Amino acid sequence: MVANPKFVAATAHVDAAAVQPLPRSRKVYVEGTRPDLRVPVREISQSDTPASFGAERNPPIFVYDTSGPYTDPAARIDIREGLPPLRARWIAERADTEALAGPTSGYGQERLADPKLAEMRFGLKRKPRRALAGRTVTQMHYARRGIVTPEMEFVAIRENCLREKYLESLSPASRELVGRQHRGQAFGAAIPPVITPEFVRDEVARGRAIIPANVNHPESEPMIIGRNFLTKINANIGNSAVSSGIAEEVEKMTWAIRWGGDTVMDLSTGRHIHETREWIVRNAPVPIGTVPIYQALEKVDGRAEALTWEIYRDTLIEQAEQGVDYFTIHAGVRLPFIPLTAKRMTGIVSRGGSILAKWCLAHHEESFLYERFEDICEIMAAYDVSFSLGDGLRPGSIYDANDEAQLAELRTLGELTEIAWRHDCQVMIEGPGHVPMQLIRENMALELEHCKEAPFYTLGPLTTDIAPGYDHITSAIGAAMIGWYGTAMLCYVTPKEHLGLPDKDDVKDGIIAYKIAAHAADLAKGHPGAQIRDNALSKARFEFRWEDQFNLGLDPDKAKQFHDETLPQEGAKLAHFCSMCGPHFCSMKITQDVRDFAARQGVSEDEALARGMAEKAAEFVERGGEIYSKA
Amino acid sequence: MVANPKFVAATAHVDAAAVQPLPRSRKVYVEGTRPDLRVPVREISQSDTPASFGAERNPPIFVYDTSGPYTDPAARIDIREGLPPLRARWIAERADTEALAGPTSGYGQERLADPKLAEMRFGLKRKPRRALAGRTVTQMHYARRGIVTPEMEFVAIRENCLREKYLESLSPASRELVGRQHRGQAFGAAIPPVITPEFVRDEVARGRAIIPANVNHPESEPMIIGRNFLTKINANIGNSAVSSGIAEEVEKMTWAIRWGGDTVMDLSTGRHIHETREWIVRNAPVPIGTVPIYQALEKVDGRAEALTWEIYRDTLIEQAEQGVDYFTIHAGVRLPFIPLTAKRMTGIVSRGGSILAKWCLAHHEESFLYERFEDICEIMAAYDVSFSLGDGLRPGSIYDANDEAQLAELRTLGELTEIAWRHDCQVMIEGPGHVPMQLIRENMALELEHCKEAPFYTLGPLTTDIAPGYDHITSAIGAAMIGWYGTAMLCYVTPKEHLGLPDKDDVKDGIIAYKIAAHAADLAKGHPGAQIRDNALSKARFEFRWEDQFNLGLDPDKAKQFHDETLPQEGAKLAHFCSMCGPHFCSMKITQDVRDFAARQGVSEDEALARGMAEKAAEFVERGGEIYSKA
Repeated sequence: MVANPKFVAATAHVDAAAVQPLPRSRKVYVEGTRPDLRVPVREISQSDTPASFGAERNPPIFVYDTSGPYTDPAARIDIREGLPPLRARWIAERADTEALAGPTSGYGQERLADPKLAEMRFGLKRKPRRALAGRTVTQMHYARRGIVTPEMEFVAIRENCLREKYLESLSPASRELVGRQHRGQAFGAAIPPVITPEFVRDEVARGRAIIPANVNHPESEPMIIGRNFLTKINANIGNSAVSSGIAEEVEKMTWAIRWGGDTVMDLSTGRHIHETREWIVRNAPVPIGTVPIYQALEKVDGRAEALTWEIYRDTLIEQAEQGVDYFTIHAGVRLPFIPLTAKRMTGIVSRGGSILAKWCLAHHEESFLYERFEDICEIMAAYDVSFSLGDGLRPGSIYDANDEAQLAELRTLGELTEIAWRHDCQVMIEGPGHVPMQLIRENMALELEHCKEAPFYTLGPLTTDIAPGYDHITSAIGAAMIGWYGTAMLCYVTPKEHLGLPDKDDVKDGIIAYKIAAHAADLAKGHPGAQIRDNALSKARFEFRWEDQFNLGLDPDKAKQFHDETLPQEGAKLAHFCSMCGPHFCSMKITQDVRDFAARQGVSEDEALARGMAEKAAEFVERGGEIYSKA
Repeated sequence: MVANPKFVAATAHVDAAAVQPLPRSRKVYVEGTRPDLRVPVREISQSDTPASFGAERNPPIFVYDTSGPYTDPAARIDIREGLPPLRARWIAERADTEALAGPTSGYGQERLADPKLAEMRFGLKRKPRRALAGRTVTQMHYARRGIVTPEMEFVAIRENCLREKYLESLSPASRELVGRQHRGQAFGAAIPPVITPEFVRDEVARGRAIIPANVNHPESEPMIIGRNFLTKINANIGNSAVSSGIAEEVEKMTWAIRWGGDTVMDLSTGRHIHETREWIVRNAPVPIGTVPIYQALEKVDGRAEALTWEIYRDTLIEQAEQGVDYFTIHAGVRLPFIPLTAKRMTGIVSRGGSILAKWCLAHHEESFLYERFEDICEIMAAYDVSFSLGDGLRPGSIYDANDEAQLAELRTLGELTEIAWRHDCQVMIEGPGHVPMQLIRENMALELEHCKEAPFYTLGPLTTDIAPGYDHITSAIGAAMIGWYGTAMLCYVTPKEHLGLPDKDDVKDGIIAYKIAAHAADLAKGHPGAQIRDNALSKARFEFRWEDQFNLGLDPDKAKQFHDETLPQEGAKLAHFCSMCGPHFCSMKITQDVRDFAARQGVSEDEALARGMAEKAAEFVERGGEIYSKA
């Protein structure tokens, strides 16, 4: 067991490593139709192309930025204060919510009244909000009424990532190079060249995308999950009975968003879940998801059979009033499906699924989540908590992939989706798990069919079981593929999967593996502009702009560290060679000679050789000695 | 630059970490039709299933073993002696080769005569062999004459991996569980349920598989590369002018095969290439590949334009007589294709390709590799060096994927394949590189078409350019997919790709990522028995046999280390919970309760609930308190 120092609110602070801008990066804000709508985008500056490669200015590129105010040197970060509530005015202006006198859940009131918790409690002064009686405050509700909310406009600007501005900043020749992209294969996704607020509204209205945005989480920067948008990734954090504490979980959250986590799920199961969650939500610029049944189980001392609808309902309200943006709800784990798992290799591996299975068996009753689903919808609608319909029967091994238990639950999730949509609730659908490659496509196809294109949110899937310690890789393979096929958000898997709880390093490894998978999926779908970053990085690589190559990558620190292990001198970063080949043997340099040679003939490269250049060969041989730059 | 201590042959030794059996693993030998045909297989022992899960014996499983004598405690390892020449008798018996008086290459003779090299030279007493005049000694030649060589029989036994013995060792119930496998999707591959020596012969005869087996590398354990066999992986090692030494490269080789490298390419470009190679080949139980043009270039002081056919030819003979099993030969880099690269994002990134491009441009002549291809075939046929027809124009960026330069070269490789086959030379085809997911399938399809199903051997491909430092992951995604589509061998990419030369840790990271990709591909193709290891590991995981879970995985050390970081106590490895959920909250344990409950009803699991068990519910609730085991 890992010992943690006691967490004391008064001295809480964020890790210094999480509050620095990334190298050569700057946060710029794009203003929307109102001055309080400022969308952050990360700008990465580049060096000029060296003279030997044609001396050219390389304009900065823009990339999606999940890191929130933490990477803005102008922002004052104090986690005891939490982040600024940037959506507060938008929520208030809609005049369909009210500030409550205080938490309305029994548990929320109890924790607030407990003097023993004073020392570790986040000091929130704001009161929780809830829909006025009879009102629905979900983004889907607005969307269906034709209202483009500031959240939708924010999302639209964010998704475009200043692509047009970047392309306009390029010379015509560069635009031909850096602006070009392969045709994608989209498997039915229909991504427009430019995302408009109206497109966002339309996708949310038809349930094909969600904007998780609890009215009690005004600190969050709106983002969208849907297959016609950039593929997103989620990072799980959370302590358990044997590990971790509040400070560590807040650090994992800030670390996760620094490296690209689009949402964060707090899966804590130990003590002080309520207080941990408050610290995380107040400091999170990304949507936060939870699995409320975990906490409900804590409230009955781990005895699944003692769970009741009332305890669960109180937990939903408690968490909704803290600002959780989406709840995993395993309402598809129905009594008749449970025996379908008995002959599995690994039974029920979802914690939520197994809790509900146990409850159903103990009472021989249908799951109260299924029975009470409309009641749950009403709560979700009153705070705009999105459903993440859990796959409690997902396969936990290759053997169990795509079996009847899994597919029966998936069909049920489709039924529940339609019920939730009748309440104007936003819905995404959780998916597996462990699936060999040849069965991945079927998962996506069945999800689209049964769940009517509600966004799919998959855990990997892991494409083999045989690599404990490396499941970020086994699952990044499956994640990239299912992302290509249409999954809207990929839940990361860390190297510690199956073995232990991820620490900060594991969180980063998981995030980077999933940023790779998500980006590979965007490229394969042909997402407009997805290839800009690849093109810019490869151009930098070809031109030996080492620092640019590092900085345009997903992890500049690691790239620089690896380079410096072999060639630590500062000068090596300006060198026209790399450590793989050494100074006398560089293939990229030779290629440049090919280009130069062709160009010197005064004809186009394509024609140069065709016109016959035998007479020039001797000249080239003479020059041969010069072409290697020395470090 | 990394300083290396001077290498001295007299004190050379192998790293202790590379000569221990893996945990609970034992090397067993399967004898073929002759007593000197002993095929190594790794046996992994398992613990019994604990009583709470049904007390069952779990027989050992068998996995493919690339590690050679190093993991056999009975073998005496002394790298100064090299490995035993297990194929020497087979080669001699064929009576189609002769022992030469000494090296016949000018360079080989020169190095042997140089007294300055005495201290670092491997002391090989054996003389090199070569085909008798007019004879061809390739495995393809024998195969086409209907001869099943001991190498072919060895390969057949090896590919089956004692699968039938394992399945017979299972109880009928276990066989139903652990022996079951999903139907694959094979994209035209036709893998028989059992690999026979005759099947191997037939595949080699038709060129759909190769057995790289130089007559001068009798130390190597025969293996096969073809899409109807297990997917293989290659590990690149090799120093460059700025790094590394002989001892380090030998260590990388032994490290690579310990973790699963099926072949190793020595890509050294620095000094003492000849001596380094000798040490590697003499101690390698796997086929060794090289790129002879690298060394040829060293011989002309890095001046590509000074290369000649004579120097190159001498290099081929030098290396063939050392025992290199396959040569990358970039004979498809033709003069007319070079201008096609001028408008690329990253030009020619293959070192070999760029050397040849430079030569072609300098002389304005067709490549001497292309012109002299039949001469090369004669050399290859005299030693049984396999062709690895290099993709010198492979894309070095997503932008350049599947462009005309690449495809023109691929078509040429198809022409060359037919020429090589006329000489009974074994051929595989190298492939890219950097390819977004939606373009990967086309690569495989075109290779099969143009190169008539000669085995494809791809570098990744990397599915995005944006993750320097993590290209083992960007490329494992592409590798798994192209392996599924039909690539026979995957050339690994390490985390250091594009940044520096891999050290031992990087080699291992690359190997494991590629073992994952290769295995995921085998599962997806439906390779017979591929799922056994997944099933066994998942069964161990479900039954909380922690040590078995570690040991059945690709990297037992890492898995154990990760587990112990959270729960270091020895007792935790017997615990019926894991660190993710803690002792009171384990989903797998709950699943077992579901099974037990169903079983106690005296009916099948499927029927248990259907028959209505409401009256039993109270009993289950009473037992609820007991079901969590304490550590």
